[in-house]
Parts: sequence; structure tokens; C-alpha cells
Amino acid sequence: MAESNALPLVLLAEQFARLPGIGMKSAQRLAYHVMSMSDSEAQEFAHAIINVHKTVHLCSCCQNYTDRELCPVCADNRRDHKTVCVVESPKDISAFERTKEYKGVYHVLHGLISPIDGVSPDKLKIKELLSRISRDSVEEVIMATNPTVEGEATAMYISKLLKPLGVKVTRLAFGLPIGGMLEYADEITLYKALENRNEI
Amino acid sequence: MAESNALPLVLLAEQFARLPGIGMKSAQRLAYHVMSMSDSEAQEFAHAIINVHKTVHLCSCCQNYTDRELCPVCADNRRDHKTVCVVESPKDISAFERTKEYKGVYHVLHGLISPIDGVSPDKLKIKELLSRISRDSVEEVIMATNPTVEGEATAMYISKLLKPLGVKVTRLAFGLPIGGMLEYADEITLYKALENRNEI
Repeated sequence: MAESNALPLVLLAEQFARLPGIGMKSAQRLAYHVMSMSDSEAQEFAHAIINVHKTVHLCSCCQNYTDRELCPVCADNRRDHKTVCVVESPKDISAFERTKEYKGVYHVLHGLISPIDGVSPDKLKIKELLSRISRDSVEEVIMATNPTVEGEATAMYISKLLKPLGVKVTRLAFGLPIGGMLEYADEITLYKALENRNEI
Repeated sequence: MAESNALPLVLLAEQFARLPGIGMKSAQRLAYHVMSMSDSEAQEFAHAIINVHKTVHLCSCCQNYTDRELCPVCADNRRDHKTVCVVESPKDISAFERTKEYKGVYHVLHGLISPIDGVSPDKLKIKELLSRISRDSVEEVIMATNPTVEGEATAMYISKLLKPLGVKVTRLAFGLPIGGMLEYADEITLYKALENRNEI
């Protein structure tokens, strides 16, 4: 933003520009939009940001974001706790829940193995996954990482750790377009990928 | 966001989705991004939003946003205070300042006359513009509203009010693509439009 702008507006635009997918011009637009909000709307927005950090943490079982001890999926006795779908990030869970067809539970890795980005297996929630296997007598683990190089590598790495434990390990069917992002898949494609999962 | 998500995250995503140009999927992505920030980064973001509302108000002269009594442009004695460029909104000023060629001052209308949207002339900062004309012995008013139906109508309306005051009223040259948005024009196009302005 040009020097002609009030400093607090410039600072707010810079905050928006740090968000993924928002460039400096969009950020400036958003800062002006916040300025045009009522005081109470701005307060509500700011409060929502702080509140997320105050109240949301990881589910002690599946590592998804939750504001309770257990997330709604893990706390639901009607779900099949012997089938665990392993995903890269919490937003992937929303994608599966939209299919309304998956009745098992989830496990969030919070990343994928990526030596280039310095993400080694010990930085992911793999330890927590392994401890669930015996504790909950898990029968099947569905590797539902994105069909990318890192997603494939992570799925292979984890399946090798799980095989000795006698658990069935499956992989989503490649109905998904390779290189694409799981969170943008439509419900039917995602459901087909679940249905045609193969043992690895 | 699906029910599987923590309520504070859903509420934050809804806040983002209210911003212009951000759909529900992008909003969800942004909410997750905020979750991945450090506590202090989130605090800083929330503070920037509240701070804008606490400290930024309208410049008592040109009606641009500022955190002082007069904005930096109005307070600058090296600027030509006898030439006033009338724009729809504060973001248009940033666009002009980027050309680095305009040495006059500005006046922000905070909207355009639009009977369909219920915006009548008295809702714009036209009264404030008229009182500046005689007080500051303004010699030229450049109508720099967007080249849209509302922008044209507003320019014509104001020029009719200004003519009896003996002030020269000019309009930006139409180097700008009709129907486009002023804030996205490149510096050269905008400078050409300034240079070739015509009396109306």
C-alpha cells in the first residue's frame, strides 16, 4: 500500500497478504473492507481468530482439530473404530465427511514425509497412529494421502510399519486425478476412490 | 465446513467467507491457516483488525482514511492544493499515488450515485467537496470516478454542481478500459488518463 495510507491499514493489509493465496492487491481490498465493517463486526472477526487459538487443539485420539477432549468423530460410538482413514491434514476429513459414505474414523498426520522440505517421519503423527492400532484393535488402515509424490511415499512408509502388526493396509483407488488436491475432489470421485480401495 | 469440525474453526471460516472474493472453500483453508499460526501471530492479526477500527477515521479535509487529523497528502504543503482529484474510494488514491506523477490533492466520495442500490447524492461526501472549493480557492477538480455507468453519472452530477462556482472541471481521459476497475489499472495507463484529461 502506498505511503498515502494510514499505517494501521497498511499493517492490516500486510497481515492479510501473509495468508495463502492472497496477494498484496487483494490484501489491500480486504483491509478496506474491514474498515467498512461496523465496530462490532470487526470485534467479532478479531475474536474468532483469537478464540480458535484459545479453544482449539488436537483430538487426543485422531489428532484432528477439536475444542473438546475427543473430536465428534472419535466420540461417536456409531462409527466403526476398527477402520482408520489416514489423512494429511484436517481439511481432508471435511472432504470425506461430505461423501456421507465413510463410517470409520480418521487419523491426521499433519503433513507428509518430504526430505526436500525437511519433514522427516518423526515430525508426523505416526507414533500416535501406531499406538492406536493395538489399543483399539484396528483391523484396517486406509491410506488416504494425496496422490502426489510425497503422498505416495508417506503411504508406502506407513504401510511398511503397519504390516508387521497384522493390520490390513489399503490405499484409495486412483479415481483421483494424479497431482491434484484431495480437498477439491467432488463427492462422487472421492466416494469411488474409497469404494475401490486396494490392499498394499 | 462439515460438522466434524470444531465450532470455533467453523465460526472463523464463516468470518472469512464474509469478505469480498472469498468463497467457503477458501475461507476454510484460511481458517486452518490461522490455526497453524503461532499464538503471537494470531494475536497480531486480531490486533491489526481491532486497531484499524480504533485508530483510523476520515481525514477532515479529503475524507480519505487516516489515523491523524489530516491525511499525509492534505498535510503536505508541497502538494498543489488548488487541484482536487475526486475518487470513489480510498483505494483509488493508492492507485494514483503509485503513478508518482500526480501532485494535487484528493477528495473521496465514499461511493457513487446509484439509485438501484439506494445511494442518493446526499449519502456521498459531496457537501464536503463543495465547501472545500471556496475555502481552499480550488482551481481545478478532476473527476476520477470509474468509467462505469454510476461513475459517469456521478461525474456529470458533480460537474453540474461545480460549474456555477467558476471552477474548472475535468474528466480522466478514456485510456481506461470501459467497465473496468480503476484500482487494477497499470501505472502508465493511469498516468496517460491523467495527462489527457478533458474539460467537461
